[in-house]
Amino acid sequence: MGDRVGVGCMVNSCRECVPCLRGEEQYCLKGSTLTYGSIDADGTLTQGGYSTHVVVDDDFVVTVPEGLGLDEAAPLLCAGITTYSPLRRWGAGPGKKVAVVGLGGLGHMAVKIAHAMGAEVTVLSQSLKKMDDGLRLGADHYYATSDPATFEQLAGTFDVILNTVSAKLDLDTFLGLLAVGGTMVNVGAPAEPLSLNVFSLIMQGRVYAGSLIGGIRETQEMLDFCAEHRIGAEIEIIPAEKINEAYERVLASDVRYRFVIDTATLA
Amino acid sequence: MGDRVGVGCMVNSCRECVPCLRGEEQYCLKGSTLTYGSIDADGTLTQGGYSTHVVVDDDFVVTVPEGLGLDEAAPLLCAGITTYSPLRRWGAGPGKKVAVVGLGGLGHMAVKIAHAMGAEVTVLSQSLKKMDDGLRLGADHYYATSDPATFEQLAGTFDVILNTVSAKLDLDTFLGLLAVGGTMVNVGAPAEPLSLNVFSLIMQGRVYAGSLIGGIRETQEMLDFCAEHRIGAEIEIIPAEKINEAYERVLASDVRYRFVIDTATLA
Repeated sequence: MGDRVGVGCMVNSCRECVPCLRGEEQYCLKGSTLTYGSIDADGTLTQGGYSTHVVVDDDFVVTVPEGLGLDEAAPLLCAGITTYSPLRRWGAGPGKKVAVVGLGGLGHMAVKIAHAMGAEVTVLSQSLKKMDDGLRLGADHYYATSDPATFEQLAGTFDVILNTVSAKLDLDTFLGLLAVGGTMVNVGAPAEPLSLNVFSLIMQGRVYAGSLIGGIRETQEMLDFCAEHRIGAEIEIIPAEKINEAYERVLASDVRYRFVIDTATLA
Repeated sequence: MGDRVGVGCMVNSCRECVPCLRGEEQYCLKGSTLTYGSIDADGTLTQGGYSTHVVVDDDFVVTVPEGLGLDEAAPLLCAGITTYSPLRRWGAGPGKKVAVVGLGGLGHMAVKIAHAMGAEVTVLSQSLKKMDDGLRLGADHYYATSDPATFEQLAGTFDVILNTVSAKLDLDTFLGLLAVGGTMVNVGAPAEPLSLNVFSLIMQGRVYAGSLIGGIRETQEMLDFCAEHRIGAEIEIIPAEKINEAYERVLASDVRYRFVIDTATLA
């Protein structure tokens, strides 16, 4: 038996540019090679993880620590690192108030990780439907964004808002929830541009940032952090023959919170 | 003779809220008392600096260090701190590439200060009209934003872009000039909202921020920094009777780079 390892969203990068050299391969200036749908070094198209075997340069392979199941670790390699990286960069931790917008695959990991980092965590979800889940996952508070009172009540509250939702939203309204000097960071985005009143940023020294997954070194750090804090993704394991059905359920938001395919059923 | 002192944009604040307690009185949650046009504690309207005397609580008075003329120091209390504060916060210094958008009252101070901090400084101005000035003030490079080639040539270059211009601009185009993880910070803003494609931030981990003047402690730090580096504002001193004429020239952008009124002529 070999090591317990994982492969995330990338399998290669140039390794020479400034971002690569500082461990941010996801921002490789030549474009990193994604695990799915990228042109590989040999000219073929990368095929993703729907397979029983995959050959990947070990610089792009991370160790799954003991105590973290391979199944619950799998989604961490995307949803985990995508939320861990901006939470770290923007200082989530003890004494900080963090809001997570959206409680889906990304959001549920953001809640777990921000809570484990020691922050006071608030979920901002469209409705209160998943409130029990949110509180169980580690949120201290849960509010519905469909209720205008939420924005009055929480004005000027958060040090960090992590927006995991790709739907269009009223940016100025959400920025109004930030404390002085606070940061809102998007890990998803709508296809169309948003409207932004720059005074929403200036008058309270606020920050609006973007973040894309995370580098390999930080992905390992995130896995170690999750193992230490006994955090895995909430998953539903499916056999290969249910993939199409699961895809429909993803589109219908009917998943709590990630499907994981049992590759033993692929044969 | 007493101390050589200055009063900036604020003369009071609540001194109890979180921003006040950390020295960011400009973000006072109850609203700081501005030097001009604010309701003062006694209910009267603050009258600004067009006077031979002014009574201000000494917590809101800064020392003008020896070696810095009172006249060249006066604009530092607004244009100096407004540019110094975001340059410090976002890490302008040796090895960093800083762009200053606009070479007016704010921009000319941004160039001097960023240069003194040790950064490599580029001016991005509408035209090349003030290029000689820009280079003399400390810029290493000077480009016209009216030339589309500028945006191709400088794509992905800057660690920090300080936008001192309040005119509407194409945000996504300017964000494209930032290096991975870089920050664009606005100290001015147009009245109408801007359009922002959030992918401009996400795909390279970029940041868009706002900044408003600076706190009293940091204003003193800025003055000490300017005195140490022998930086004053570029000024044209005018007597009181030229105020209306000077105002017209400000509107016509005909000032290099700040008018200072000789208060001895006010009597």
